[in-house]
Amino acid sequence: MNYRLSAVAQDVKASGVREILKLTQGDSIISFAGGLPAEELFPKEALRQAFDRVFQQGNRALQYGLTEGYTPLREAIAMRMGQKGMPVSPSEIVLTTGSQQAIDLLARVLIEPGDVILVEDPTYLSALQIFRYHSAIVESVQTDDDGMDMAALERKVLARKPKFIYVTPTFANPTGRVWSTERRQALIALCRQHDVLIVEDDPYGEIKFDPSASYPSIYSLDARDGGGAVVYTSTFSKTVVPALRIGWAMGHPTMIDAMARAKQAADLHSSSLDQQALFQLLNHFDIDLHITAIRMEYKKRMWLMHDLLTQKRWDGVRWNKPAGGMFLWMTLPEGVVAEDLLHVAVREGVAFVPGAEFFCGAPVKNTLRLNFSHSSPQALEAGVERLDRSLQHYLNESNRTPILT
Amino acid sequence: MNYRLSAVAQDVKASGVREILKLTQGDSIISFAGGLPAEELFPKEALRQAFDRVFQQGNRALQYGLTEGYTPLREAIAMRMGQKGMPVSPSEIVLTTGSQQAIDLLARVLIEPGDVILVEDPTYLSALQIFRYHSAIVESVQTDDDGMDMAALERKVLARKPKFIYVTPTFANPTGRVWSTERRQALIALCRQHDVLIVEDDPYGEIKFDPSASYPSIYSLDARDGGGAVVYTSTFSKTVVPALRIGWAMGHPTMIDAMARAKQAADLHSSSLDQQALFQLLNHFDIDLHITAIRMEYKKRMWLMHDLLTQKRWDGVRWNKPAGGMFLWMTLPEGVVAEDLLHVAVREGVAFVPGAEFFCGAPVKNTLRLNFSHSSPQALEAGVERLDRSLQHYLNESNRTPILT
Repeated sequence: MNYRLSAVAQDVKASGVREILKLTQGDSIISFAGGLPAEELFPKEALRQAFDRVFQQGNRALQYGLTEGYTPLREAIAMRMGQKGMPVSPSEIVLTTGSQQAIDLLARVLIEPGDVILVEDPTYLSALQIFRYHSAIVESVQTDDDGMDMAALERKVLARKPKFIYVTPTFANPTGRVWSTERRQALIALCRQHDVLIVEDDPYGEIKFDPSASYPSIYSLDARDGGGAVVYTSTFSKTVVPALRIGWAMGHPTMIDAMARAKQAADLHSSSLDQQALFQLLNHFDIDLHITAIRMEYKKRMWLMHDLLTQKRWDGVRWNKPAGGMFLWMTLPEGVVAEDLLHVAVREGVAFVPGAEFFCGAPVKNTLRLNFSHSSPQALEAGVERLDRSLQHYLNESNRTPILT
Repeated sequence: MNYRLSAVAQDVKASGVREILKLTQGDSIISFAGGLPAEELFPKEALRQAFDRVFQQGNRALQYGLTEGYTPLREAIAMRMGQKGMPVSPSEIVLTTGSQQAIDLLARVLIEPGDVILVEDPTYLSALQIFRYHSAIVESVQTDDDGMDMAALERKVLARKPKFIYVTPTFANPTGRVWSTERRQALIALCRQHDVLIVEDDPYGEIKFDPSASYPSIYSLDARDGGGAVVYTSTFSKTVVPALRIGWAMGHPTMIDAMARAKQAADLHSSSLDQQALFQLLNHFDIDLHITAIRMEYKKRMWLMHDLLTQKRWDGVRWNKPAGGMFLWMTLPEGVVAEDLLHVAVREGVAFVPGAEFFCGAPVKNTLRLNFSHSSPQALEAGVERLDRSLQHYLNESNRTPILT
């Protein structure tokens, strides 16, 4: 039978990251590939108790729920956001299956085929995948360490009239970048002037290594001007556990209502049992203390990976020291193709994600993303050893002059 | 800010059923509206134990999972389907957030704007909603008590070249209809001849009132000819609990792989914690015995509702006695508008879904859907009383000659 898949379904390839995740699920490979949080830190016992509390509430807890999500959890998120300078009412929140679904619902309610979406370059590859699935034209804006170049952005906005601008301004995936407050404010001003929506994706904002540092969300800055220019998405996947798949979007009721209607068609609602359990967890567990523990551990792991890499004294290899999040971004010497290196690395028992995947414009092939949050200190050490061997082999195989000392 | 919602997002209205569900969530209204299973029968203790078993497995159970879903659960579903004459390998199954998402993913990977989808009339309204969200042209095929009229279907297939045919052949929502085996076989022959995919949506097939009756799924009949003409979707929402939101689709790898890629963009994966718990439940709980209890109770409730309605001796009001599922389908006298009656009914403290919502073609406004699975015997009795009062009021208000004795 000829199933006649839609053109976009024929085009879409499975994400490389997910395919790598499949390859590296065994215990023999040390994976710096996936964007996985540290399992050792999962609040398993607290979560078990939270589920018990839901089960104690009677059978109605197991019935169908509301498309928008469990109301007490939306109220708890609204309160939490308010404490972080992000005023929002529970009715301006829709709960989703991870923040991934929040972005997908946004795409559903906004994108007409051929609409232009502007993004940073590189950016979150699954967002690129979503926008392409909805037949958008995704274009990148020149970006430096402080965020998008505002002059370049304004030219793009005027020339291309984008439907929205998608940014991950705090500890971006894959680069770990943080936008300066000035750029955030300039983005809001520009978008308000030209009536363009900002989509702020913030899965990592809570994972900051310096407790005293402040990275005000674009949503919070916009709120001071009355709000409405930003739809903000986030998730409990990095701060509680990924398995629950609980994310959310918040913004103007026009947007949230449209997203809820789209969600009704997409899946009626996400697991309401999980949403109720998360609400119980937030009520009976000190999540801020827990997030502090995550921050301290990830900071330790980032510095360990950095130190281990430094000890290798590779010539011409650079990487950043992110102020939060879960990833190091590495640039290899010119001419090295990270995807080819990956094949060697998997043979050596270590994995990462080639950076090329994350680019919307011309891919920079000598870049790669290293996750430091998932691996234990021992695994970080062994993994960097294997990465070292991989680089040596790769350079020998490709008959290059070794650049490594 | 002008958010410029896409045309389809502007068009889509929230489903009437869901809006009614919101109105009737209080305890003062007896709702025959929602398609809700009986809460008293939920296997809460077994499910609590199943979650405990997952929590005993260590922290990895709380990590990100595979897009296709938890492999042991897919294996368990494949085995269960095999026992019902539906051969399928685990890799030909994708787990979804309810069967609603399975239908949405199918729509995503198949529909190009303007594609024609053929459906029964009336049919599942949320499927209509999905197909319209994907800018399909949905057309109905003349349907009688045995299923679609095959001559009418063939004319439509030749004239309209549909992308697929969507059917709920066993205890359909809203009509409770069951297709005859002959019609099922004729549908397969016709679709194979014209190379048109069948989407068989089967959320209610397990809820049959006569344990000895056999309603072979279209998938099982197609499998005898080598398979591939059917994508089959179902759910554990009616047989275990809705809150888990676990459904699945199964079919040819071309379809399932495309749906998994679409799901990767849509939400990465559904709650893997819930999937693991369901797997534990299936391993430690006699689900077939449980389904037998559901069948017996729903049969009892259907007959009770039927008897209560019969006692009212309303002139010109007809309804069916379904052989399974969760709904009665009622036709009121000509000229009665069920939606108007609903407004009176809600004032009287009872709710139902006007049938017009479920029609793809011309709505038959004097029809309505009554759910009998969710209400206790006492509530069924009180609800039918209220329905009786509503009809009397409605007819008085509209100055009609009372048709009720």
